[in-house]
Amino acid sequence: MQTISVELSAPVSQDLRETLLKNLYWTDRAITNVDLSDGDPPVLAVACSDSGDVTGIEAKLLTDVAEMLSSPVPVRPRVVCERRNSYGIKLTANQTFRELSARGWVSPELPGVFVYAGPMADLYHGLDRAFGDLAAGLGARQVYLPSLIGTDTLLRAGYLRGNAHMANYVYHIHEDRSAISRFVRQLTSGLGGIDLSELPTTAPSPEAILSPAACQPIYRMLSGRDVGESFVASGYVRCYRYESGAMQGLRRSREFGVREIVYVGSKADVVAFRAGLLNVCSQLLGRFELQGVLETAADPFFTDTSAQYRTFQLSLELKHELKLAVGENETVAAASVNYHGDHFGRLWDIKSNGGETAYSCCMGFGIDRWCLAIFAQYGFDIQDWPRSLREVMPK
Amino acid sequence: MQTISVELSAPVSQDLRETLLKNLYWTDRAITNVDLSDGDPPVLAVACSDSGDVTGIEAKLLTDVAEMLSSPVPVRPRVVCERRNSYGIKLTANQTFRELSARGWVSPELPGVFVYAGPMADLYHGLDRAFGDLAAGLGARQVYLPSLIGTDTLLRAGYLRGNAHMANYVYHIHEDRSAISRFVRQLTSGLGGIDLSELPTTAPSPEAILSPAACQPIYRMLSGRDVGESFVASGYVRCYRYESGAMQGLRRSREFGVREIVYVGSKADVVAFRAGLLNVCSQLLGRFELQGVLETAADPFFTDTSAQYRTFQLSLELKHELKLAVGENETVAAASVNYHGDHFGRLWDIKSNGGETAYSCCMGFGIDRWCLAIFAQYGFDIQDWPRSLREVMPK
Repeated sequence: MQTISVELSAPVSQDLRETLLKNLYWTDRAITNVDLSDGDPPVLAVACSDSGDVTGIEAKLLTDVAEMLSSPVPVRPRVVCERRNSYGIKLTANQTFRELSARGWVSPELPGVFVYAGPMADLYHGLDRAFGDLAAGLGARQVYLPSLIGTDTLLRAGYLRGNAHMANYVYHIHEDRSAISRFVRQLTSGLGGIDLSELPTTAPSPEAILSPAACQPIYRMLSGRDVGESFVASGYVRCYRYESGAMQGLRRSREFGVREIVYVGSKADVVAFRAGLLNVCSQLLGRFELQGVLETAADPFFTDTSAQYRTFQLSLELKHELKLAVGENETVAAASVNYHGDHFGRLWDIKSNGGETAYSCCMGFGIDRWCLAIFAQYGFDIQDWPRSLREVMPK
Repeated sequence: MQTISVELSAPVSQDLRETLLKNLYWTDRAITNVDLSDGDPPVLAVACSDSGDVTGIEAKLLTDVAEMLSSPVPVRPRVVCERRNSYGIKLTANQTFRELSARGWVSPELPGVFVYAGPMADLYHGLDRAFGDLAAGLGARQVYLPSLIGTDTLLRAGYLRGNAHMANYVYHIHEDRSAISRFVRQLTSGLGGIDLSELPTTAPSPEAILSPAACQPIYRMLSGRDVGESFVASGYVRCYRYESGAMQGLRRSREFGVREIVYVGSKADVVAFRAGLLNVCSQLLGRFELQGVLETAADPFFTDTSAQYRTFQLSLELKHELKLAVGENETVAAASVNYHGDHFGRLWDIKSNGGETAYSCCMGFGIDRWCLAIFAQYGFDIQDWPRSLREVMPK
């Protein structure tokens, strides 16, 4: 293990702190841990495996840190509503995750991928049902959304420009019976993984990516259609992001469940519906007696382009996040509301009201993070939970 | 387009017919269609793209056909129960799929991957809930199952030996910020796919495979544990199989939903529970007034090894399938019940009753195929459906 220390020139905002901690794993494959002290000046401590070229990595780190610090987001998030509980938060995200694991309610299948059992599984399914009911109350019809998304769908949506590094690419072996038989004969059970490098596959040009965000296939489905007055749908979908060393328990996992609500219609109706979705967020804080804040937000950035887009998002208030407290000084974004303007309407040629380009907005609930925040705020004895949360659990 | 005809020496069983139609796409990548006439002798018609080497493909086809015809399964399936409706089946699988597509209830995202809307989505979710309630009635606790499965889990389970060709492999780009930035700058929106061949990725040795069968992560979760009297769980999971040219509408898709029930316990209890699961299958035919048959079955084969295992499965009655009618002469396997003996108990060191090696069995409902069969048997006007099926639909 080797360590590189970088002293920053001044304290950084919470937002920039998150960006550094997430993005610096991408500087070099040898980086195994990234930490940022709270001190003034803050010190970045980056650990590398012994095989890494420290001098080279340090140079790349300095370039990357400089680029991130010089991508200012001049607009501060605006708080829409906030709710605090006087009795404080029981546990941090890490403590909660450890307790859930110790109880056998969360078991690892892969880094960032888990099986849930017991009250964790009950809460997960109960919340999805509650969010689904809530969507139905807003007039949403259920849709079934796939997790395999065409690479062309995401390319068209522009998703890959800022997020190619986080995508989970899917491929298959090309049709060649004798090559596959040879490969299979060499397999040894359970040891050393597999080596597909000699087989013809679609890996160089993968046809599918695992859904990074729930709503994309809906716009493709509506392509070339006129939705009339409006189209409102709700679906549950498993989403996937590879976040390298930044994956952390239930706080940031590789596979997670999202309940999504999508509204497509005229500009005025979309704006009104978006206001309703923000209202839903505030009401949920009250209904479940959770500590959290609803504020304007921006998507994480990885490249220059996406950094500029953040300023655009924040100044036009295109994105809101509902952040739930886990621990006294930590939050997780447990839901987001996104206003797209006519972006997807133009992209996929979707009309409303007999010919106008359609506008759209969507909301996604990150169910796993709701579970994390609820256990962190109220502990593991369901009898101690507020009644509205107990009622979410299956009878 | 080029065509190769192969005259078989004698009529083939339904089972062998399916095997030929599925497996021959794997003979060569240039094969675009495989068809088998009903005549005596049956004639195999194989279409290839113009770029294919017909002479070479024909030679490989003859070898493959000979191998499949010489892998006899001497044991015939045994019918456990059968139910027929006097009024016949409305539509074939292809007709049903075309009608669902025309109504906009099924929209393609990728070959074999769909978005469902309208009554198709309602039926899908309603059935999952009905199967989940049924599982709860059998004492099952809900679990949440991931779709990303560790390659090592499936390697250990022996899954890849017979099914490496059908696996959907998942990879990510290695941490290398500058390489990724270069790649992203070359992306052009929506045209020509992407080319990742120059980037360092985990593709040669993928860490994950998309769940080909729902229950594997459960055994891993129980690894090293004693489940006491029994462990009964039910979970919904998206499953994935790449089946080349044999993918066909909702009959055989690349992504599909499964409601799974898993029982782990003593041998006597597992045998009794399996009998209960078979009973559930018979009762469902009656409850939903569906035409279908419950019979012993075997997993599809691809290599010699898996062909031998089929005989083993059939003679010991390890696998049952509930096949629902779609069209007058066609069925789809809509549920399967599998008895594993102590295979997974030994593999994952799972005990029951304070130290005995645990036995297990499972049942999976293929929800998409249930939807297909229900629309095929009862049409698209929900008012015409039997009451028990109407009641499955959300209010």
